[in-house]
Amino acid sequence: MAIDADTYKQGMRQLAAAVTIVTTEHEGQRCGLTATAVCSLSADPPTLLVCVNRSAAAHDRIKLGRRFCVNVLSDEDAALSRRFAGLEKGEARFTAGVWRTAVTGAPVLDHALASFDCELIEQVEAGTHTIFIGRVHAVETRPGRRPLLYADGDYSGLAALEDVVTGRA
Amino acid sequence: MAIDADTYKQGMRQLAAAVTIVTTEHEGQRCGLTATAVCSLSADPPTLLVCVNRSAAAHDRIKLGRRFCVNVLSDEDAALSRRFAGLEKGEARFTAGVWRTAVTGAPVLDHALASFDCELIEQVEAGTHTIFIGRVHAVETRPGRRPLLYADGDYSGLAALEDVVTGRA
Repeated sequence: MAIDADTYKQGMRQLAAAVTIVTTEHEGQRCGLTATAVCSLSADPPTLLVCVNRSAAAHDRIKLGRRFCVNVLSDEDAALSRRFAGLEKGEARFTAGVWRTAVTGAPVLDHALASFDCELIEQVEAGTHTIFIGRVHAVETRPGRRPLLYADGDYSGLAALEDVVTGRA
Repeated sequence: MAIDADTYKQGMRQLAAAVTIVTTEHEGQRCGLTATAVCSLSADPPTLLVCVNRSAAAHDRIKLGRRFCVNVLSDEDAALSRRFAGLEKGEARFTAGVWRTAVTGAPVLDHALASFDCELIEQVEAGTHTIFIGRVHAVETRPGRRPLLYADGDYSGLAALEDVVTGRA
C-alpha cells in the first residue's frame, strides 16, 4: 500500500495546472517563485492556498513577512515563468516583467491575468512542503487574454473545447 | 483591507484548473463531486490535497470513510463532469462512466487520465471549506489524451503553446 515518488510524479504530469508566480517581500528583499500548486479555498471570507517547497528561498520569507501575492500568468509569459522557476535567482528575477507593490507590500505583476494579494493567516507543514493559507486583501483582474498552463511536463495554452474534442463528450 | 466574495470570484475565474472527480465510499454508499481545487503537496511521501465545501454530500463521507480518489478527467468527459457537479445526485452520478473500486475502497474512473487513490491523513477547516490531505496509496496513469480544463466559467481544452501565442513570449 505504498507507491514511490516517480510513480506519483508520472500521475501528477496528467494534472494540468495554471502557472502563477508567487511573490513576497521581507525587510526590503523581494522574492518569488513559479508555482502551480495554488487553489481557491473559500470565497467568503476570500481565502486561497499555495503549497511551497521548504527548500525554496521564498518559503522562509513568506513565513517571516506573513504576506504573499499570487500572480496568474498569461500565455505570453512562459519566459517569465522560466525565470522564476530557476533560470534566475533572487532580485534578478524581477528585472523582467513590470512589477508594482501590492497592498500588503508583496510584488504585483502588472500584466498578470489576476493578482491575489494575501496576508498569511495559517501554515500547515506536510512533508517537504508547507501549505500557506492566505486571506485575500486585494484582487486585480485583467481578463481578455488566455492563461499559461503546465501539463505533462511542458507549457501549454488554452483552446475552446469544440476545437479539441472528437470523442464522446 | 477587505474585498467581497464577488470580487474574489471574478479574480478566480482567471485561474484555470484541471477538472477532477473526487470520490469516496462509506458504509457501502458511493459518493463523488466535481472538483478543481486539487493540487500536489509532496512527492515523498506522495501526498496531495483537495478543498471540499462543507455543504457537499461527499464532505462528511470523506471524513468518516477516511479515503478518497482523485480522478483527473480528459476533454472527452465534460458531460461526466456536469453530472458530478450537480446534474445528478448520489449514486445516480455513477451510472455514467466506467467505475471500479480502488485499493482504499473509493471508486476509480476507468478512463481517467490519472487516478490517485488516497487515505485521508489530515484535515484543516478553513471557512466554508475543508482541506483534505491524502496520502497516495495507488496511482493509475493513462496518458495520451488531453485534460479537461475549467477557465473563466466554462470548460476548455488544451492547446500547444505555439498555436495560441502571438505576443511577446
